[in-house]
Amino acid sequence: MLALLVGHPAPAGAAVREYWIAAVPMSWDVAPNGGDPVMGTRIPASERRFTALVYRRYTPGFRRPWPNTAESADNDGIPGPLIRAEVGDTVLVHFRNRDTHYRLPHSMHFHAFRYAPSSDGAYIPFRSGRGAAVPVGGSFTYRLRAVDDSYGVWPYHDHSPSMHESIGLGLYGAISIRRPGDPVPDREFVVYLQNHMGVDTINGRAFIGNTPTFRARRGDLVQWDVIGLGDDFHVFHVHGHRWLRNGTPVDSELVGPSSTLQVRFREDAPGLWYYHCHVETHQDNGMIGLYRVMP
Amino acid sequence: MLALLVGHPAPAGAAVREYWIAAVPMSWDVAPNGGDPVMGTRIPASERRFTALVYRRYTPGFRRPWPNTAESADNDGIPGPLIRAEVGDTVLVHFRNRDTHYRLPHSMHFHAFRYAPSSDGAYIPFRSGRGAAVPVGGSFTYRLRAVDDSYGVWPYHDHSPSMHESIGLGLYGAISIRRPGDPVPDREFVVYLQNHMGVDTINGRAFIGNTPTFRARRGDLVQWDVIGLGDDFHVFHVHGHRWLRNGTPVDSELVGPSSTLQVRFREDAPGLWYYHCHVETHQDNGMIGLYRVMP
Amino acid sequence: MLALLVGHPAPAGAAVREYWIAAVPMSWDVAPNGGDPVMGTRIPASERRFTALVYRRYTPGFRRPWPNTAESADNDGIPGPLIRAEVGDTVLVHFRNRDTHYRLPHSMHFHAFRYAPSSDGAYIPFRSGRGAAVPVGGSFTYRLRAVDDSYGVWPYHDHSPSMHESIGLGLYGAISIRRPGDPVPDREFVVYLQNHMGVDTINGRAFIGNTPTFRARRGDLVQWDVIGLGDDFHVFHVHGHRWLRNGTPVDSELVGPSSTLQVRFREDAPGLWYYHCHVETHQDNGMIGLYRVMP
Repeated sequence: MLALLVGHPAPAGAAVREYWIAAVPMSWDVAPNGGDPVMGTRIPASERRFTALVYRRYTPGFRRPWPNTAESADNDGIPGPLIRAEVGDTVLVHFRNRDTHYRLPHSMHFHAFRYAPSSDGAYIPFRSGRGAAVPVGGSFTYRLRAVDDSYGVWPYHDHSPSMHESIGLGLYGAISIRRPGDPVPDREFVVYLQNHMGVDTINGRAFIGNTPTFRARRGDLVQWDVIGLGDDFHVFHVHGHRWLRNGTPVDSELVGPSSTLQVRFREDAPGLWYYHCHVETHQDNGMIGLYRVMP
Repeated sequence: MLALLVGHPAPAGAAVREYWIAAVPMSWDVAPNGGDPVMGTRIPASERRFTALVYRRYTPGFRRPWPNTAESADNDGIPGPLIRAEVGDTVLVHFRNRDTHYRLPHSMHFHAFRYAPSSDGAYIPFRSGRGAAVPVGGSFTYRLRAVDDSYGVWPYHDHSPSMHESIGLGLYGAISIRRPGDPVPDREFVVYLQNHMGVDTINGRAFIGNTPTFRARRGDLVQWDVIGLGDDFHVFHVHGHRWLRNGTPVDSELVGPSSTLQVRFREDAPGLWYYHCHVETHQDNGMIGLYRVMP
Repeated sequence: MLALLVGHPAPAGAAVREYWIAAVPMSWDVAPNGGDPVMGTRIPASERRFTALVYRRYTPGFRRPWPNTAESADNDGIPGPLIRAEVGDTVLVHFRNRDTHYRLPHSMHFHAFRYAPSSDGAYIPFRSGRGAAVPVGGSFTYRLRAVDDSYGVWPYHDHSPSMHESIGLGLYGAISIRRPGDPVPDREFVVYLQNHMGVDTINGRAFIGNTPTFRARRGDLVQWDVIGLGDDFHVFHVHGHRWLRNGTPVDSELVGPSSTLQVRFREDAPGLWYYHCHVETHQDNGMIGLYRVMP
């Protein structure tokens, strides 16, 4: 099976990681608390709730949903589960289309990895194969390799002909790949910037209290995995912190659809801080959250 | 007082710099010359003039406005006065809200610096303190430290609940921090990109003759401090010049809300040149100025 | 003649390159195949066709159009011909305005190069010279120098008072400058991102089959010259590939009006792949093409 992949023999110690992931419909509320506590505005339920499509992880053979644990509590909607790997790993993603609501074909397209065109998951008329438009009830296994230049933070998302509805409905997730020997962060926060229901969301939620409240302690090596999708450009900003980009201190960085930021710093600023998109209308429209650092 | 700041003892020679800055209303005209000399268009006064809110620097104790001099002539409206520091410095900013026109609460939020949450100046419901929403007539002192990763070009701006009116009205300024021993530029130009009255402005003005005409001489070390705020993304371009970014020559760089560019070059191209945002509609709509280099 | 240029004596071996380029009207169709094969949509001819303005290269003295060859087949419309140089070269561009359709003044403004203000090609009221607004039938020679920091990928475009019509009509092209001794790519692809007729185009064309299908072989050193113009920001993405930017692997990079990306990799992924702008509405609206890699 792996012989189909071009070149790059697996190094000693490389793992084969398998994921079972399905596209499933799910009721979603972009602001379960009902609105924006900063400005005191309320959003009617009809403007907050929709039937989302999400990637959900399952136990082997799609027997039951993968349980959330204290260590990994992200199998709960938008975005899909974080796919982790190390350079050298082979990753097999067994995908099943369980979109019983919209009944559209779907796929998975992965940035970061090396793969044969048959695992690209992108629909090309008359040319792409089965993995580019998996029908409702169908399955496909994507065969991926984390190679030398695969490390970093990356998106995955639907790239079937229905991608232009489905990405807006939530069919996307994050990939985090490290090099063996690189320091492992104590905290890793996924920050997915996208628009849903006309609201600017982080991980599918809008306004503080709905968006994730991230937590760290002084001394932690903290990593933020920031990813954009959709149509808009954003500026990721964290209050009270700076980090280096190519040797230059920054605290505000541009991110666009499918571009990513891996932001790392050693935490030394206890307190309650905002993180947000610094585009004013996006910040006003929900793209803001809280970050609590314990002393 | 400084013991409240976390860690980082001040190095020998570090200064304590104090600023007295008030938010004040001010009549403002985005195009005092009346329009765009490139296209020959005129803008009616009613579409150029508004009551701005600006940060204005005062002498100690807010006794009188800080006088403009040949060396420092920026205490005149939009943007607010350039706040300078060196790594190692402590900066105390005594802020007073003199917004007698709109009568809104205001604050100052500083990028770049290290500070305790009480000096963040950002309103968090039920959590932030007095510095996050200073009422009309009130005062607050922000205690800031320029630490190892504070050097560069950064914005400051209102982050109170009224920020979404006030930033559009002019309540922002620039910070420039250098490392002791780094070369001091002969010329430093602040280029603030923002939209006022629906017009694309540089330092609150639109179209050549209204926007700053910057001046340098052959041989000068020139530094441009480029900062965006608001909703839009821009591309900073200078005619007839190039500079290095991470070792690669560029002459056009993206800047978004709160992201910044520190552009440096040794001047060797005498002449009259444009600098402008290369987004076509922004350039047409006022975001362009002149740069005169003497031989 | 060259003595008018400031400083920088030409190194031994430096060439003088001469180009004869005219602005000419040309019938243009953004989607000659009639629409989008991915979604199966058709575009009426009236919404695809317009009278473009393009830079066309001629033989010396403007005697006849420069012939397209297998090595250089880009003298055919939007964008204009690729201008190549090496650091150290002098480039003379003899421009003629043959805009017999719109009958507007035009110019050429070059990024990358060093030149005297008289060769800037940008109109400044009462100050710029003849090269900033060449009337119909008129000519002007721009004198340019590829200096130490001129290497890379850059745009050229009209900067006369009619630029705000003409750039949207197609009056732009690319510059590629290398340093002597730098590796020469086996394949170099120009990818110009701009909007025409309300459609998001690559090299003036929209949707696969209309946009360029680029070709390479395993083992080729491949270079993509990506440039934006107009009003919009884009994210350049190639499927199945990654490359390094400042030592960090990426597969999606932001590009705005006049900003550029030089993307290089050693090809090792045979197959048929998409390249596209990852802004969803841009990809839907035409900004996508195919890349075929032979084993």
